[in-house]
Amino acid sequence: MSGRFKFIGTGNARTVPVWGCHCRACERARQESRHQRGACSAVLEVDGFRVLIDAGQSDLCQRYLPADIDAILLTHYHMDHVMGLFHLRWGKNCEIPVYGPDDAQGCDDLFKHPGVLAFQPPMQAFETRSIGPIEVTALPLNHSKPTIGYSFLCPAQSTKVDGARRIAYLTDTLGLPTDTHDYLITHRPDIMALDCSHPPRPDPQNHNDLGLALKIIEAIQPPQAFLTHIGHELDNYFIEHPALPANVRLAEDGLELDLSHHAD
Amino acid sequence: MSGRFKFIGTGNARTVPVWGCHCRACERARQESRHQRGACSAVLEVDGFRVLIDAGQSDLCQRYLPADIDAILLTHYHMDHVMGLFHLRWGKNCEIPVYGPDDAQGCDDLFKHPGVLAFQPPMQAFETRSIGPIEVTALPLNHSKPTIGYSFLCPAQSTKVDGARRIAYLTDTLGLPTDTHDYLITHRPDIMALDCSHPPRPDPQNHNDLGLALKIIEAIQPPQAFLTHIGHELDNYFIEHPALPANVRLAEDGLELDLSHHAD
Repeated sequence: MSGRFKFIGTGNARTVPVWGCHCRACERARQESRHQRGACSAVLEVDGFRVLIDAGQSDLCQRYLPADIDAILLTHYHMDHVMGLFHLRWGKNCEIPVYGPDDAQGCDDLFKHPGVLAFQPPMQAFETRSIGPIEVTALPLNHSKPTIGYSFLCPAQSTKVDGARRIAYLTDTLGLPTDTHDYLITHRPDIMALDCSHPPRPDPQNHNDLGLALKIIEAIQPPQAFLTHIGHELDNYFIEHPALPANVRLAEDGLELDLSHHAD
Repeated sequence: MSGRFKFIGTGNARTVPVWGCHCRACERARQESRHQRGACSAVLEVDGFRVLIDAGQSDLCQRYLPADIDAILLTHYHMDHVMGLFHLRWGKNCEIPVYGPDDAQGCDDLFKHPGVLAFQPPMQAFETRSIGPIEVTALPLNHSKPTIGYSFLCPAQSTKVDGARRIAYLTDTLGLPTDTHDYLITHRPDIMALDCSHPPRPDPQNHNDLGLALKIIEAIQPPQAFLTHIGHELDNYFIEHPALPANVRLAEDGLELDLSHHAD
């Protein structure tokens, strides 16, 4: 199996830098582009099959040719996760299957004018589908719009179980529903990307703050956890308090993880 | 008076090149960026006061600082005319007045979460407001969502009437409502930008084809008319049939018109 998981964007809806903001994190991002955070999205590529996870980047038509995208998986239909679809849909000579949560409303007129986007029947809670070579399971999340995370089971090159790679992508969410939490305990991901929008807050709303995110990671104990959907306040917090548990990192736009199974 | 009118984008919702399209116009646009057409929008600047007309460009946060935009005027709430607002709204340290048609629905959750966008009471048919130094009149158009064009009266430097400049921006529309047509006859624009999305068609829908656009221009007789909201089929048509009346031009992304009043 050859594969890679890449964070395309790791910001919240405000992105980093925030327009017109002169805080330390935003000024740093203007000066050093590696600190910028675009719309939260990722790409998973397994044996040449490429899946976009969310589509909030507005330049997808420039990043990809139609043949480059085999499927799109949406966590939910908030604008910062689907904006790029409003360009893609008017493409020609392609048809792209799009998977997402059960949300009859969707976003604006996407369902009315899908263009080349072939919206598939919504993913039901804990349903597993084979999408190309990947087994994808939908995990309910807690958010202000119907939202699912995804557990990806990438195939091993051989029957060797160690070769399989399980990745969980969990944003946007405030905590985790109990069933999703239990699923992740019994199907522990090797790599987990988790909503962590804000620094510690007394009363987090709609998104994890750092306290909630670390608590989830501590319970599930993935070997590698990445915080994503990051707002500028969290970047400022980490400028002052850079310490994190050994298995936890801040995701970065463009960060790529090699999933390839290398024969011994 | 110093002023300029600039076409930021001159494409229809599909833009040029269309994603995945290999027609002559789309291939030409890939090879020569001056033939590309982004989301239909413009900027009018008078004595340092800058008005965006529509906001479909998704990179407005990169193009402008908050202080660069004094007001935004929307023709309607279709995604290709408002997409950039979903980024701008999360800005800081600013408040931008936004004017538009009477459309309670708007686009997605823009009205629910306006952020720094200060939506003004909707412009009513033929209402005139002073927006900065510009007198703006709303002209009803024929489209699948409530849509208004704008007639702009820019101030003369002195009392000399010749110094005033009238500009009409009329997209998206299929033909013109009779009252709007009559208004434009009695308030003839010096410069007119007009929806012309398609080459001649037997039964144009929702947008002007070339036949309708030229008929409108012939009736109103502006000294300068620019066709905008152009689709790739129209670009292909003009590769084969480049002739246009002397007062008519195809708009181009980045085309700038000097409105300054120069003393004799």
